[in-house]
Amino acid sequence: MNIQDFKEIDPGERLLLGAGPCNVPPRVFRAVAAPSVGYLDPYLFGIMDETQELLRALFRTDNTVTLPMSATGGGGMETTLVNLLEPGDQMVVGVNGLFATRICEIGERLGCDVVRVNVEWGRAVPAERVEAALKGKSPKIVAIVNAETSTGACTPLKDLAKLAHDHGALFLADTVTSLGGIDVSLDADGVDVAYSGTQKCISAFPGMSPVSFGPAAMKVIEARESKVPEWYLDITMIRDYWGPARKYHHTPAINMIYGLREALRIVFEEGLEARFARHMLNHRALVAGLEAMGLSMLVPAPERLPMLNAVRIPEGAEDAKVRGALLRDFGIEISGGLGELAGKVWRIGLMGYNAQPRNVVLFLAALEAVLRSQGVKVGAGGIEAAAAVWAT
Amino acid sequence: MNIQDFKEIDPGERLLLGAGPCNVPPRVFRAVAAPSVGYLDPYLFGIMDETQELLRALFRTDNTVTLPMSATGGGGMETTLVNLLEPGDQMVVGVNGLFATRICEIGERLGCDVVRVNVEWGRAVPAERVEAALKGKSPKIVAIVNAETSTGACTPLKDLAKLAHDHGALFLADTVTSLGGIDVSLDADGVDVAYSGTQKCISAFPGMSPVSFGPAAMKVIEARESKVPEWYLDITMIRDYWGPARKYHHTPAINMIYGLREALRIVFEEGLEARFARHMLNHRALVAGLEAMGLSMLVPAPERLPMLNAVRIPEGAEDAKVRGALLRDFGIEISGGLGELAGKVWRIGLMGYNAQPRNVVLFLAALEAVLRSQGVKVGAGGIEAAAAVWAT
Repeated sequence: MNIQDFKEIDPGERLLLGAGPCNVPPRVFRAVAAPSVGYLDPYLFGIMDETQELLRALFRTDNTVTLPMSATGGGGMETTLVNLLEPGDQMVVGVNGLFATRICEIGERLGCDVVRVNVEWGRAVPAERVEAALKGKSPKIVAIVNAETSTGACTPLKDLAKLAHDHGALFLADTVTSLGGIDVSLDADGVDVAYSGTQKCISAFPGMSPVSFGPAAMKVIEARESKVPEWYLDITMIRDYWGPARKYHHTPAINMIYGLREALRIVFEEGLEARFARHMLNHRALVAGLEAMGLSMLVPAPERLPMLNAVRIPEGAEDAKVRGALLRDFGIEISGGLGELAGKVWRIGLMGYNAQPRNVVLFLAALEAVLRSQGVKVGAGGIEAAAAVWAT
Repeated sequence: MNIQDFKEIDPGERLLLGAGPCNVPPRVFRAVAAPSVGYLDPYLFGIMDETQELLRALFRTDNTVTLPMSATGGGGMETTLVNLLEPGDQMVVGVNGLFATRICEIGERLGCDVVRVNVEWGRAVPAERVEAALKGKSPKIVAIVNAETSTGACTPLKDLAKLAHDHGALFLADTVTSLGGIDVSLDADGVDVAYSGTQKCISAFPGMSPVSFGPAAMKVIEARESKVPEWYLDITMIRDYWGPARKYHHTPAINMIYGLREALRIVFEEGLEARFARHMLNHRALVAGLEAMGLSMLVPAPERLPMLNAVRIPEGAEDAKVRGALLRDFGIEISGGLGELAGKVWRIGLMGYNAQPRNVVLFLAALEAVLRSQGVKVGAGGIEAAAAVWAT
């Protein structure tokens, strides 16, 4: 090995319009580069308290145990499940995409009885289907993915939370892609436990996972018969570091916490309602542009997420060749389909900082150029249609 | 909540001479601030391959499965254990400090039979003691902490690895604090599996944990009867993302990988032997200075780590008051004792980038000033004694 062969890092610029990670505002880069402090430094404790306060405001909850795990979104998913479930417990999961499938897989690894409510990928999970599955059952958890990143479908939480509670279950929501882009109101909707990621609509770097455990969830944890099998994700121990006890558990990713806090400051300087409206407006412009070009969306309009847009790959277009040209010639990343949607859809993210008109027009224009250069028939009115949305 | 109350991040400067995290070279800050790319970006795959190559060189191993986990050092510890152990398995652990205790705790949470070889905190684990414990046993794992961060004791690996193999066990080493500061030769010493942290002698940010699994360890994993209970830390799935399959598992902390790679570039630009010698030289200067001031080290000289120096709190000094003044008045963090050593020792880290003469003299001078100002008797020759070491 010759160390001279390892060059200075120089990725060039990317516009990350895939399913995440996304571009991060310059202020977040600068915050991450603030001087490091120790994990017991009084300054850090202040930053941690503020980060928790901002996360509670974002989750719209009073839950004390609201904090970012030192793990990515998948680690946050596992955190909620491993702390709540014990072997033999039953969990009912609405399965309409890859991430719901993952909830099932983790539940099964933990030795639980997982009941799948299978729904077509690209659709919301209907409350009636969950209600039917719950008949005569009293599971420990009913779990749903609020924003299915693999399909772009949005499943509202409130009715499902009520159903879960009517059957004596906790209600768990995956809000990885929704948090910061659409309304996520844990307390008003009756969500007992939720997790998210930092690299989607919050617009911080990947690597942390905000989680929130409500009082009913904490009560279930306190009543466990067995110890939480995973030390690293044991929420009671982590709470004792993030809470007043300040008991050492692990050294958190200190500079990443700086970045998360800065991203949250930006969220609240904009204001939640303004942020949600911005996501919706630019989503509508993108969809109008894509449809004007002759493409069609996977998810029916009422069930669409604004921040993750799954569009069917048009006739004559080669999935990898189009995405490759977008990345190579225009520095734009979009995502392919996952699981059963691989090769059938593209997933276009307009998340947080990236939900901007300039990104919508750049993407529409670049996509048109790539499709035309690859001989795919495409309509010409993409930009005009997007502009019409902004003009309203 | 009023967002105007959340001020711009401004920790001020710290000299982090505790047990980690430590200061990070400016080049690492800059690398972390390089533009983000997606988790399937060809550029990222190149960076990941190079990071793995550098980690293999640092661990001195040919192990294919050598990569940084998206978790801190404790998560790396759990990664090795949860992938190798199944309920009912036996593990023998040399316990001479807090982190060895944690290995036992994780093993027990996984339903294993953990045999503790208890040794005085502040001492190495003698091979004879492990040999006696192994008599008539054939455990799945023998585990040892190479560099006990809680005490500053160094336990060499080679003899213990041989003992483990003689009893049909895998040999597991915690190298969180040793990697990058002293020789860690997995292949030459016969270490089957190891984990480390990024925030110690590698001098990157906290938040990742390099792990390395050798062929014998991978064989044990392939022969498992049960699935790895923890999805997030399942090394087979994570290998399939870091290896040629490039199969999505989770979105890694992309910008942190940039930073780790840059820190590793710096390590190999210096060269391993030069780096180890620098750690040893500055350690000797620090110890000479402390002893000249009348303080005494916890660990006997032959068992001392160079990067983590546990010194007894001198008569008349108040632990928290001294550390508080160092932090408040001099911006210097050192660590207190953990577990049974709380209130009895200070832990002074000279790790990676921080193992520099300027930090040694600043710390000795600041400690003398604080102790004198708090009325503690202290010798005057600290700097002179340190200088004598550098002069040789």
